[in-house]
Amino acid sequence: MISKTTQVRQYFEILQDSTCARLEQLESGHRFIEDRWIHHEGGGGQTRILQNGVIFEKGGVNTSAVRGTLSDSLARRLEVNPQRYSASGISLVLHPVSPMIPTVHTNFRYFELEDGAWWFGGGADLTPYYLFEDDVRHFHRVWKQACDAVDPSYHKKFKQWCDEYFFLPHRLEARGVGGIFFDYLKGDFEILFRFIRTCGNSFLESYVPIVETRLNEPWGEHEKEWQLLRRGRYVEFNLLYDRGTAFGLESRGRVESILMSLPPAVRWRYNFEPSAGSREDALVQVLRTPREWIQ
Amino acid sequence: MISKTTQVRQYFEILQDSTCARLEQLESGHRFIEDRWIHHEGGGGQTRILQNGVIFEKGGVNTSAVRGTLSDSLARRLEVNPQRYSASGISLVLHPVSPMIPTVHTNFRYFELEDGAWWFGGGADLTPYYLFEDDVRHFHRVWKQACDAVDPSYHKKFKQWCDEYFFLPHRLEARGVGGIFFDYLKGDFEILFRFIRTCGNSFLESYVPIVETRLNEPWGEHEKEWQLLRRGRYVEFNLLYDRGTAFGLESRGRVESILMSLPPAVRWRYNFEPSAGSREDALVQVLRTPREWIQ
Repeated sequence: MISKTTQVRQYFEILQDSTCARLEQLESGHRFIEDRWIHHEGGGGQTRILQNGVIFEKGGVNTSAVRGTLSDSLARRLEVNPQRYSASGISLVLHPVSPMIPTVHTNFRYFELEDGAWWFGGGADLTPYYLFEDDVRHFHRVWKQACDAVDPSYHKKFKQWCDEYFFLPHRLEARGVGGIFFDYLKGDFEILFRFIRTCGNSFLESYVPIVETRLNEPWGEHEKEWQLLRRGRYVEFNLLYDRGTAFGLESRGRVESILMSLPPAVRWRYNFEPSAGSREDALVQVLRTPREWIQ
Repeated sequence: MISKTTQVRQYFEILQDSTCARLEQLESGHRFIEDRWIHHEGGGGQTRILQNGVIFEKGGVNTSAVRGTLSDSLARRLEVNPQRYSASGISLVLHPVSPMIPTVHTNFRYFELEDGAWWFGGGADLTPYYLFEDDVRHFHRVWKQACDAVDPSYHKKFKQWCDEYFFLPHRLEARGVGGIFFDYLKGDFEILFRFIRTCGNSFLESYVPIVETRLNEPWGEHEKEWQLLRRGRYVEFNLLYDRGTAFGLESRGRVESILMSLPPAVRWRYNFEPSAGSREDALVQVLRTPREWIQ
């Protein structure tokens, strides 16, 4: 009998393989490099990174399965007693070269405590630099289908959770146009694991068609500059607010694997605001007022 | 009788003027732009920013004097009861174009509570991209002189505090080569205010000679790339650990004034390590093992 942790880890590794294979196909030649690493308390991970690709300026598809003891502050944050834990996850972030192709993030994780409690968490969200409404609707539609296949109540809840989670309070702006986000998902393991697999298997469908559609969209220096400035917001979110980043650094995970989410090149310009009515401004308006993209 | 808060604020504004004037002289023509802003609970600030200068790619010299009520979490962090407060400060960050000129940061602040408690905090620290030991010694020497002029016990304590404060635990690296840092400095107001003025008046002397010495040091694409990568560490420190940034964002200060400290252009490259024995490696070695620069 294979433990729950092992079942989940094995699925994440298969998903990592199939996802990287499809992304390499898109890149026609550029390959992921792989680093395997060991966690100081037990377990480890496989970090796969692609840099300076034709489509992706930087991307990472990482799996990890670690064990350890919750620090007091981590236990407090999880609202449980300090004890041993195991955590398995897959994490993906892709930063495209073209500002016409959105950055995408997806992550699924399984957490188990010594006292027997366990839960799943995860989600997927899209961060465009220019707004193509069809792309946003496509992304949300795929994730709604994944949710609906397991529980028709999930999508509404997880879409809203995503809008709330990927929010920069100091900017009063969402990081992107949302997707789904969930955490502390407990219940029937078989059903929830099926949900996680349905999600994991939906990622490529949610994103690759957008890449293919926008690949030949023209852009120049102006659009690249805007992308670099917006990537600054991505950094602000990940370092100021992201729980996964905080958990990883606090539990002394592998820094280069955790911070692979940071974009390859970023700019901060003082008090920059796009001019009213511009395409850049159209994006900002949507980030300030999250929308319902599908019915 | 002028209140302590007003005296300090007035000094910070004079210091802002004289500092900006000297930096503009260095820039021979490029000027700071000024934005005045109002805090939602009372008071406000003057943000002065220089971008795309000849010497400074981005720099800010900001003063603020705000009033408000401590949130529960801020009161907890300061280990006081929630109550009204006033805070005056000056904050400077300069990001040079040339990787041969170090980034510099200085900040002085005065904090007063409704219950009468007050304290000063502040410091100055240097973040080089390439190590010129003479420059580092000069910087430390000036700050030691400023400390010694008021209290011969200060420098040792505040130099160590700086090494401890500007440290990135996830990287096991200092942000730079140190300087001084102090907080919760309480006692005789006249003496401590004199210390703050001695410090404030030492800033230009601690930094401008370094700029002038390194201005014609040659550099190319390789050195610029290293500077951009190292600036990534600056961002990591400021967003993950800096108390001033956290306080500013949490007390809903003006975001663009707080985040003026972020560099204009930054890179993250996966798992980049300079080659052993290189000039880049020489810097990293010093950041991993803080030194005594002067006796």
